[in-house]
Amino acid sequence: MEINAIPEAFQTKLRLAILSALLTGEKNFKELKKITEATDGNLGAQLKKLEEAGHIAIRKEFVNNKPKTTCAMTDFGRRQFREYVEMLERLLGQAEI
Amino acid sequence: MEINAIPEAFQTKLRLAILSALLTGEKNFKELKKITEATDGNLGAQLKKLEEAGHIAIRKEFVNNKPKTTCAMTDFGRRQFREYVEMLERLLGQAEI
Repeated sequence: MEINAIPEAFQTKLRLAILSALLTGEKNFKELKKITEATDGNLGAQLKKLEEAGHIAIRKEFVNNKPKTTCAMTDFGRRQFREYVEMLERLLGQAEI
Repeated sequence: MEINAIPEAFQTKLRLAILSALLTGEKNFKELKKITEATDGNLGAQLKKLEEAGHIAIRKEFVNNKPKTTCAMTDFGRRQFREYVEMLERLLGQAEI
């Protein structure tokens, strides 16, 4: 990954917070809301963007007649996160020469 | 650094590209323009934001009667960059447990 190819997923605090939360395992909407302290509207919009970009997968189902939304990181998302960190590490390494 | 405390400096591709370029040493405006491929207006605006946040220092001088703008990362900026990378490494590490 090059600096000019950073995915949009890593370009706002909220999207990065969502990805970070999902790195450790899948979370439902309520959990993500609590972690990120975002509004329903904003969180929903960012989740949709991350899904469209292929970083996360969203599963909607009914549990006891109530809608439940569960989000999980995809392999692609995980790989991109790792590449992003590796790129930053490389930049930092260059600075220390 | 916590995910909710990521500085704005690391939240857009252009600002991150500027910081990355400066990590390896000071650069003038022309050099940064070439590296980032940003417009004069946008580059100038983002440099100002990074200066206001204390991440970079901007020096303006006249060389052969022409204005020259040189940008350098501050110790604070360098420290914040390192903390940002360390936070991401930590998140990635948690995911791999």
